[in-house]
Amino acid sequence: MKKILIATALTGFNDEFWSPVVEKKLLEYGFEIEHFFKQGLTLADLPVDPDVEAVVTSWGSPCFTAEVFEKLPNLKFLGHCAGSVAAVASSEFYAKGGRIFSANYVMATAVAEWDLLMTLLHSRNLFGSGSVKSGELMDWEQKFNMGNLRESVIGCWGFGDITRHFLRMLKPLNIGKILVASKHADAAELAEYGAEKVAFADLFKESDMIHCLVGVTPDTWHGIGAKELAALKDGAAIINGGRAGLIDEEALCRELAARRLYAYLDVFYEEPLPAASPLYTMPNLVMTPHNAGYPGRKEFLPFLLDEFNRAAKGEKCLCEISADRLRTMTVEQLGKKK
Amino acid sequence: MKKILIATALTGFNDEFWSPVVEKKLLEYGFEIEHFFKQGLTLADLPVDPDVEAVVTSWGSPCFTAEVFEKLPNLKFLGHCAGSVAAVASSEFYAKGGRIFSANYVMATAVAEWDLLMTLLHSRNLFGSGSVKSGELMDWEQKFNMGNLRESVIGCWGFGDITRHFLRMLKPLNIGKILVASKHADAAELAEYGAEKVAFADLFKESDMIHCLVGVTPDTWHGIGAKELAALKDGAAIINGGRAGLIDEEALCRELAARRLYAYLDVFYEEPLPAASPLYTMPNLVMTPHNAGYPGRKEFLPFLLDEFNRAAKGEKCLCEISADRLRTMTVEQLGKKK
Repeated sequence: MKKILIATALTGFNDEFWSPVVEKKLLEYGFEIEHFFKQGLTLADLPVDPDVEAVVTSWGSPCFTAEVFEKLPNLKFLGHCAGSVAAVASSEFYAKGGRIFSANYVMATAVAEWDLLMTLLHSRNLFGSGSVKSGELMDWEQKFNMGNLRESVIGCWGFGDITRHFLRMLKPLNIGKILVASKHADAAELAEYGAEKVAFADLFKESDMIHCLVGVTPDTWHGIGAKELAALKDGAAIINGGRAGLIDEEALCRELAARRLYAYLDVFYEEPLPAASPLYTMPNLVMTPHNAGYPGRKEFLPFLLDEFNRAAKGEKCLCEISADRLRTMTVEQLGKKK
Repeated sequence: MKKILIATALTGFNDEFWSPVVEKKLLEYGFEIEHFFKQGLTLADLPVDPDVEAVVTSWGSPCFTAEVFEKLPNLKFLGHCAGSVAAVASSEFYAKGGRIFSANYVMATAVAEWDLLMTLLHSRNLFGSGSVKSGELMDWEQKFNMGNLRESVIGCWGFGDITRHFLRMLKPLNIGKILVASKHADAAELAEYGAEKVAFADLFKESDMIHCLVGVTPDTWHGIGAKELAALKDGAAIINGGRAGLIDEEALCRELAARRLYAYLDVFYEEPLPAASPLYTMPNLVMTPHNAGYPGRKEFLPFLLDEFNRAAKGEKCLCEISADRLRTMTVEQLGKKK
């Protein structure tokens, strides 16, 4: 491969993603790389360069439509240094033979790890009996008021990279039962992970905790509303480290106010969450500031270089996004705002 | 096997340990079981019964010395429905050909799960940026102030059941480096778990978090004192779900007050921890009320019945405590008090 172009409006790209591991891999694979940063970058801004065979995009990169081939006529690969490629991928890019890879695979590891943390927190009822702030006494009367994961039912909505990583992480914990609701999940693959396929509605009736691990599309938007929340068992938890739009936040607020359920949220309609949000008044809610997928940013670019190398050699890639798969990935515009 | 006798002073034994699974296994294995509860139970209280071939003990059972064979002349197996068998086992029991099994294997799973939770909590710095109590705002400026397990060094002191379970649970998380300090750990077995053996002193220099997973014996008592704490990196964590006596609590208090380290504790010199304890004033400390090993109590007795069945059939057992191993298990008297 002659040249890779990093094309993004993200001025902090290097701080965020560059590392000695990247330089080592460039040497190892014999890749040449060029940086092209510009605020408000559009395809028209790109230089004409027939040597460029791959681009690296990230948050703030433009959508790669057919127009890009006027500038980069030999472009073959696009590696997205972020999660969903919905904002940068186009059907025209695929039509011209372009292939798209995403660091979603790496980010999914971090999100799955967050889901694992919240699973353990909920099961252990840490905030019910523990002391996590200075001055807060432990409650020894409540010490045995907790669940047991080996008897719990864990529900996953969606079956993509995050779910797969999450199920791998759950395996050594011998979870009582794992249910997955997903249109495209294959029962045989689920069985390898120790999970069973269920209908979406049954997920809510049977699970002790529900993990939201699906992309936001018009199909899944507000998939968890008043009806689904009402179907949950007393004391069940909604765990959302994915996209805020999957849940009707107002309906969740009402249910949390009734103190029947628990929630663990990393994503919100409005971010940063305004201090006046009613979510801040709920004792049965744990929140993190949209950082579930953060750890391991420095692994994104090395991963994409590995993908380019595998693709160039005709090997199987770990996170190539097909035109088909693109349609199930989050539509960024639906991610947050109503 | 003719008859099993449950011999304990614990009046709540059945609430704690009995379940339909126990009844199913008794039927399956054709075991007959009898309960003998008495406050302040001693061996002299036991009935004479030549049919009894196994006893089940728990917290509050007496030490099974040679005297027991006057009452139960055909006793072969002792199954301890708790962790360390130090309080019930005797060298005389072994000398008479008795074999001892412990539910420690099951409890170790629960403790390992607690260690996993604390590992994730520390790495994610949840309390630094998240909101876990109503009214507590998230800190969006601190959202990326966290570690990355795939670059972290996790240190384990001790290599018994808990460590093995814990290392199995860590495997899918691709931890940067795992170090184990243990006299009897075998480097080849450690390698299978993705871990390396280190000297005790090096554990403190190299690790980002130290898990205390060793029994308390005169050898390990106060193994973590001022010197070991001083050797830790800034921001490192001491995680103790094992026995309070492993750490010099006063030295830990001084280090926590200096705000250089973090600690995650489930066990204390005095339990319940007095409200006036200086530990309650530390912002860099998470505490749970000695419940790390709690989930899964109902699995203890089924596990022991499985062990009896395996032993009776001459199969390999999962948690048989040899006279040798007994010496490395916690000496209860050292567990808590100075």
